[in-house]
Amino acid sequence: MLARFIFSGAALISLFAAQSLAAERIIVSPDGDIVLTVSDDGGRAAYKVDFRDSQVVAPSRLGLLFKDTHGFDRGLEIAGSETTSADETWEQPWGERRFVRDHHNELAVEFVSTDGPQRRMTVRFRVFDDGVGFRYEVDKQKLFGKSVSITDELTQFAVGTGVTAWWIPSGEFNRYEYIYEQSPAGDVQDAHTPITFKNEDGVHLSIHEAALVDYSGMSLQRQRPGTFKASLSLRSDGVRVKTSAPFVTPWRTIQISPDAKGLLNSDLILNLNEPNKLGDVSWVETDKYVGIWWAMHIRDRTWGRDGIHGATTEETKRYIDFAAEHGFIGVLVEGWNIGWDGDWFNNGALFSFTESYPDFDLKEVTGYALSKGVRLIGHHETSGDITNYESQLEDALDLYKANGVRMVKTGYVADAGQIERIDKNGIKRYEWHDGQTMVDHHLRVVKEAAKRNISINTHEPVKDTGLRRTYPNWITREGARGQEFNAWGSPPNPPEHTTILPFTRMLAGPMDFTPGIFDLEPNKRPPVREDMQRSDPRNRPQTTLAKQLALYVVLYSPIQMAADLPDNYEKRMDAFQFIKDVPTDWEESAALNGEVGDFVTLVRKARGGEDWYLGAVTDEDTRTLEISLEFLDADKSYVATIYCDGPDAHWKSNPYDIKIYEREVSAGETLRLPLAASGGAAIRFTPKATAQ
Amino acid sequence: MLARFIFSGAALISLFAAQSLAAERIIVSPDGDIVLTVSDDGGRAAYKVDFRDSQVVAPSRLGLLFKDTHGFDRGLEIAGSETTSADETWEQPWGERRFVRDHHNELAVEFVSTDGPQRRMTVRFRVFDDGVGFRYEVDKQKLFGKSVSITDELTQFAVGTGVTAWWIPSGEFNRYEYIYEQSPAGDVQDAHTPITFKNEDGVHLSIHEAALVDYSGMSLQRQRPGTFKASLSLRSDGVRVKTSAPFVTPWRTIQISPDAKGLLNSDLILNLNEPNKLGDVSWVETDKYVGIWWAMHIRDRTWGRDGIHGATTEETKRYIDFAAEHGFIGVLVEGWNIGWDGDWFNNGALFSFTESYPDFDLKEVTGYALSKGVRLIGHHETSGDITNYESQLEDALDLYKANGVRMVKTGYVADAGQIERIDKNGIKRYEWHDGQTMVDHHLRVVKEAAKRNISINTHEPVKDTGLRRTYPNWITREGARGQEFNAWGSPPNPPEHTTILPFTRMLAGPMDFTPGIFDLEPNKRPPVREDMQRSDPRNRPQTTLAKQLALYVVLYSPIQMAADLPDNYEKRMDAFQFIKDVPTDWEESAALNGEVGDFVTLVRKARGGEDWYLGAVTDEDTRTLEISLEFLDADKSYVATIYCDGPDAHWKSNPYDIKIYEREVSAGETLRLPLAASGGAAIRFTPKATAQ
Repeated sequence: MLARFIFSGAALISLFAAQSLAAERIIVSPDGDIVLTVSDDGGRAAYKVDFRDSQVVAPSRLGLLFKDTHGFDRGLEIAGSETTSADETWEQPWGERRFVRDHHNELAVEFVSTDGPQRRMTVRFRVFDDGVGFRYEVDKQKLFGKSVSITDELTQFAVGTGVTAWWIPSGEFNRYEYIYEQSPAGDVQDAHTPITFKNEDGVHLSIHEAALVDYSGMSLQRQRPGTFKASLSLRSDGVRVKTSAPFVTPWRTIQISPDAKGLLNSDLILNLNEPNKLGDVSWVETDKYVGIWWAMHIRDRTWGRDGIHGATTEETKRYIDFAAEHGFIGVLVEGWNIGWDGDWFNNGALFSFTESYPDFDLKEVTGYALSKGVRLIGHHETSGDITNYESQLEDALDLYKANGVRMVKTGYVADAGQIERIDKNGIKRYEWHDGQTMVDHHLRVVKEAAKRNISINTHEPVKDTGLRRTYPNWITREGARGQEFNAWGSPPNPPEHTTILPFTRMLAGPMDFTPGIFDLEPNKRPPVREDMQRSDPRNRPQTTLAKQLALYVVLYSPIQMAADLPDNYEKRMDAFQFIKDVPTDWEESAALNGEVGDFVTLVRKARGGEDWYLGAVTDEDTRTLEISLEFLDADKSYVATIYCDGPDAHWKSNPYDIKIYEREVSAGETLRLPLAASGGAAIRFTPKATAQ
Repeated sequence: MLARFIFSGAALISLFAAQSLAAERIIVSPDGDIVLTVSDDGGRAAYKVDFRDSQVVAPSRLGLLFKDTHGFDRGLEIAGSETTSADETWEQPWGERRFVRDHHNELAVEFVSTDGPQRRMTVRFRVFDDGVGFRYEVDKQKLFGKSVSITDELTQFAVGTGVTAWWIPSGEFNRYEYIYEQSPAGDVQDAHTPITFKNEDGVHLSIHEAALVDYSGMSLQRQRPGTFKASLSLRSDGVRVKTSAPFVTPWRTIQISPDAKGLLNSDLILNLNEPNKLGDVSWVETDKYVGIWWAMHIRDRTWGRDGIHGATTEETKRYIDFAAEHGFIGVLVEGWNIGWDGDWFNNGALFSFTESYPDFDLKEVTGYALSKGVRLIGHHETSGDITNYESQLEDALDLYKANGVRMVKTGYVADAGQIERIDKNGIKRYEWHDGQTMVDHHLRVVKEAAKRNISINTHEPVKDTGLRRTYPNWITREGARGQEFNAWGSPPNPPEHTTILPFTRMLAGPMDFTPGIFDLEPNKRPPVREDMQRSDPRNRPQTTLAKQLALYVVLYSPIQMAADLPDNYEKRMDAFQFIKDVPTDWEESAALNGEVGDFVTLVRKARGGEDWYLGAVTDEDTRTLEISLEFLDADKSYVATIYCDGPDAHWKSNPYDIKIYEREVSAGETLRLPLAASGGAAIRFTPKATAQ
């Protein structure tokens, strides 16, 4: 086995034009398609990646710099290496698929110093059939004192200028909430991950990270056109990461696929995370919810009492009744607690997480809900003031637990770099949403919640890096432009948005996009009150109705919101049926086709059931997809309940034209799905009878 | 006087939607066109700028954050303010004009804390007719310990998304050496300064800084589209600036003009620098030089001995003869010292600054030069290893002084962020070219040189911020894409390059662009040796011959190189005459016309003489400029010696077509100057006789 994937020796690579003999280590993926080469050429640690005999990552540096001691930058040589391989399958408590195969070859390369004081680091590479992960491992050594301050990580990703990139900018006010840009990689500036590239041969790469724990998030900084450097988010004390030896960094990941859809079928990020640390997590619930939320975004209601308060006992009961009637497990209520009046955006310290507004009776609401088999979904908006939040966290979670709450949505609305905390000296600090402080904060909240069997759905979060495997109660999060931008975003999400998300943001993990807006009219209604002016009257979801349904399958989340007002669903119960039916937890999932920014089709099989569901979406272009039904059980025939764009559907002129019909199908068939401009299709496949 | 430009009071501005009564201070420029408003709205320090009743900078934050104590971020109020005004004229030892008028109104606003520990800072604003400058002034106070570590500067510049910007990216490998991009300000990512904007009304703004001393250089980080934040270059220890109280920051500058050419006539940057600290600087020489330099860039010769060594005694004497014959004061010799062989790019430690190659006899060369009235121009390439350089600096300068050298060109070829130094603990550190370490280093070099009556011409420098006023021996520098990119750049400088530089890079100060390449053929000649392959054979300066001449007037530098090989000048002595004639030190200078990226015309009057010189250049477009000669003395008539594009000139097809002729002109006339595609015109005006 070893011989198959490891070659050692001396070879010449020319990372920086130095011409000395360098040591190399080479490791290949189990299927042989990916070849990763590690080198100490010129005294620098470096790697490169080839896929099917073409270079996809040119020689790229590795290394770390420290504040108080010598770095792993130069004067390094490969002192040794170890290889192993693994092929095991593990089970997810919830997820896109029950069983995940982890099949990889591993190479751990030890770099030691050839000059300066003695120092050593290991870079551990794992090469899967669907990509590469590597991390730095630094053990206790004379080099370090009590603490280690990392001032820079030298990791490069040299993808070249010519590949096409889909990306969002990093370092700007709106965190991850940007419309994706498509450009040659040479034109990409500083960008968040996941960032996805496509080369001339159709090979797709996506760079991200896995298992971001007690470290700062990595974005990509353009060093030269097409060559990116890891840019670790700065801590407010000026260093990038503060830790102590021994430590390991998050995994730097490069998912690789010969086509776009292959990226969606990759479990690489999850495989690079640690197994579940919470033990029995049967208390983690997956399912669908409704809530007092969209009403605020369209300015029918307000979070605080400086308008028309949404979170009243009465209004919540109305949502509870609706949830109970239609089988939703929860009702999210935002704006129930004191602090929302006036300029809460910059005044997170005003929030109480235990004191409700006088017109919201927590006990009454939660009691009423439970009597109907529904639970309140809690809400904590911090406005980015984490000191205030952490000081109340335990009490706040205790209160919810006492009232039967099993899920809390947290929020961190604050400009990037403007998360506030008061340090131990009483000094106000400003942190980044993806800096080490927030990485640590989120895990603290998730662990506190776990103690109380509460799951966390983080909005304005740090990006997902697969930690749901280790902490399955970190159930979903936001971290991209969601549905609310269709209410007030300038501009709203363009038709192609949800055809890019699967290939970028969704590679990181579940997203609480909150699909299912049925009111697709421009937002032209008069304000409900003079001081509650609506946003741009042209705003609306730029999709057809069928596409809103398809999003429940396309954009994976173990909890999904039916985001619209109950009244709007009541007008279209035929289409609403799909939302009622569609599960949020799956036995299997597969992307059948797709091109980034154009279209995508996913199918998923209900966890513990026999039904399959399909979601397909397209960008602004009309297109017809040919769907081979070979994913269905060949032994069965199915009734397909199809929700697709009608013949006159068009997101702009006729979004409601939906065709809902049943058809008998089987695995041998091919289904033609006509999608309107920014349209979609949602299908439920139910086994009819066992053939033969 | 006071009443004219200062109004205090409470007013409502809505920087962050807070709605409390804020204190304001307002100051206007002497001519009343610029109105600057300072506010403490919402407890934050902020300013905005109006020009002729239109907002040119929307409300923008001010402030500083510190590592070890409370910042000037929130909880601030205006405690008081002081106003003064000044109108004085000072004399430059050398420069674009002998006399500079400093006419401004000043407002110093004291901000104090309303919560947290007591703290206070002053923001001092100076408002000139040509723009605004402001800086932070922080005095000794209880707040601080022995040292002050600045972790962020909050200064914003909200110019809006719609204005057009000309800019180069910051934070990337090639320092400041980029082709300028033109885009809406909303599309600008992180950018260096000077960055220049033009609004719909034709108003031009340029943001930069003045008097960068013991602080990190500021670039602009996009915070929101069209809103930029000061991004101070990071020190390798993770903070932005390390200083102690009291301290003042550099001036943040916004030059404002109703048209493009007004920017070129602004002395704002110089006016915000401190007066000359060196006393008698009559030893600082301005004039023209030649050198062993272009031969290496076109790969006729090499710096080291791993090819055909350029810097030999014999070759240098040949250049000295040429310089003596044609009136050049100096001969630059690069590659004379040990260290250039092999991979010097990453091995700055190999350089000796006192030991010459065996085929270069420093004593003989300098003696020979002096005997002919010429001086050697010294050269120190550090390859960014400043520890190695500083350890030899005094000896190196002593050696040059002993050999009659009065000017040294220094070089810092290294990727951005890769300046190397060994700290006091022996740890290798990586610094930015514009970080505090380098800001301090350069001034150390300039001061050491001044002690020996040596002037410094810095390549791969920190950007200019007008320190030549304070240290007149910091005579010029590079800091943009220069002529050498025409030898090997990919691509070479485009035709518009030198029509953008005056409105961007040149606003900072003199540039050693090294004009005057007469060989305008594509670089197709065979290599002189097999191991000295030429670069892209299409490379060449993309200009006409006349444009090369015009650059001596357009791109100001008190020392100018005639950059081409002597052989190439000897072939075209008619055109060369302009280079021989044109001075480099001026009594007066004025931009007559110009549009950024299209064309520009400058006229300058020789220091201590009566001759005027004109330079005009155009981009890829042919155009005819109408030049009113009203700048000439109305009492005189002049002989104009005109070097302009011939009727068939075109940079690509016919670059050598030049028309050289004399014509009698006087102040009342208008001259029509036809410029070819990427052409130019250079004119010397010599008084003929005193009329009446």
